[in-house]
Amino acid sequence: MPFITVQIAKGHSVEKKRQLVKALTETLIETLGAKPEWITIHIDEFERENWSVGGQLHIDKHSGRHKEKGI
Amino acid sequence: MPFITVQIAKGHSVEKKRQLVKALTETLIETLGAKPEWITIHIDEFERENWSVGGQLHIDKHSGRHKEKGI
Amino acid sequence: MPFITVQIAKGHSVEKKRQLVKALTETLIETLGAKPEWITIHIDEFERENWSVGGQLHIDKHSGRHKEKGI
Amino acid sequence: MPFITVQIAKGHSVEKKRQLVKALTETLIETLGAKPEWITIHIDEFERENWSVGGQLHIDKHSGRHKEKGI
Amino acid sequence: MPFITVQIAKGHSVEKKRQLVKALTETLIETLGAKPEWITIHIDEFERENWSVGGQLHIDKHSGRHKEKGI
Amino acid sequence: MPFITVQIAKGHSVEKKRQLVKALTETLIETLGAKPEWITIHIDEFERENWSVGGQLHIDKHSGRHKEKGI
Repeated sequence: MPFITVQIAKGHSVEKKRQLVKALTETLIETLGAKPEWITIHIDEFERENWSVGGQLHIDKHSGRHKEKGI
Repeated sequence: MPFITVQIAKGHSVEKKRQLVKALTETLIETLGAKPEWITIHIDEFERENWSVGGQLHIDKHSGRHKEKGI
Repeated sequence: MPFITVQIAKGHSVEKKRQLVKALTETLIETLGAKPEWITIHIDEFERENWSVGGQLHIDKHSGRHKEKGI
Repeated sequence: MPFITVQIAKGHSVEKKRQLVKALTETLIETLGAKPEWITIHIDEFERENWSVGGQLHIDKHSGRHKEKGI
Repeated sequence: MPFITVQIAKGHSVEKKRQLVKALTETLIETLGAKPEWITIHIDEFERENWSVGGQLHIDKHSGRHKEKGI
Repeated sequence: MPFITVQIAKGHSVEKKRQLVKALTETLIETLGAKPEWITIHIDEFERENWSVGGQLHIDKHSGRHKEKGI
């Protein structure tokens, strides 16, 4: 039954997504005791021009901590 | 006022979407007595590499019931 | 796979919800050819003080079309 | 902490989005007293063939109030 | 058409919500040129035990910047 | 930046939620290399009368696999 939505910036490879859903599913099994087949995950990718923190679009961030790790 | 979000895999034709929103709207009118102009529907399509059930990306499913009907 | 979210105001009976998810599921089966066991529906109820159209909270609407049908 | 999702039709320029997130962030600071760095905004764009009001896809609306202002 | 979801912690008064939706609606009118009656806002309140930043539930934060402004 | 929404049935203890967000955050750090302070998680709990699989409300399921593990 758990339904997970992961909002991340576009640009991750299929292999990275593969690892992500596998790891998240295992985490939910271990933590909640959920059965694997009941765990659905939706990776909801956003463009950097569609995400803002502190009133600034992601594509406009040129320095500072926002840039440190481009997730 | 009802706001409906339908998350389905990419690849349905416009004609299919046309039928879908028409049918869902009628269902909401009949069931809830909602007025048509208050019913908003958002079709939120996902790529198969962004959806996982049981820890496996949709694009990696080659057999089994997950494949039976590609919705 | 279809995942449906229905946002409606609080106050519908369990029987009404029962009819709603049954009817919506049938609509999705007929329209998309989806298999029943793959259709998940989430009824996401909101309080009228948490919904606004035209800049006015639902609880503040005393007349007009917004009031006509309290869905 | 406030997390804002803005669902609008595709087609707004980056400059328009820039103004939008700046203005929304300022509104949240003024109204809730939120700190800017805690305000995240997601612009979730939809295709007009994926949005319906009154059982009709947006791309099928040729007249009437729905057409007046194409937001 | 714009549909706005505002996720904030529980505990704001109705008067505060009234100001919030009014101000947000005006911001959208000014920025996007949207017509008021097409702007829907959903305030989606969360319990502090259901929100986490940095792996820590909100209710467990006793100090630091997370506590500074309890939005 | 990753924003995670976890939809689960009501009824988990605070301690269980504490473990859940900690484990999910660590999974995201390991898998995506995300910085902890950028990872926000929202636990979105639903009532069993508001969730349906296969056209049947959760509260109406008395047997079968849906009942096996009440997550």
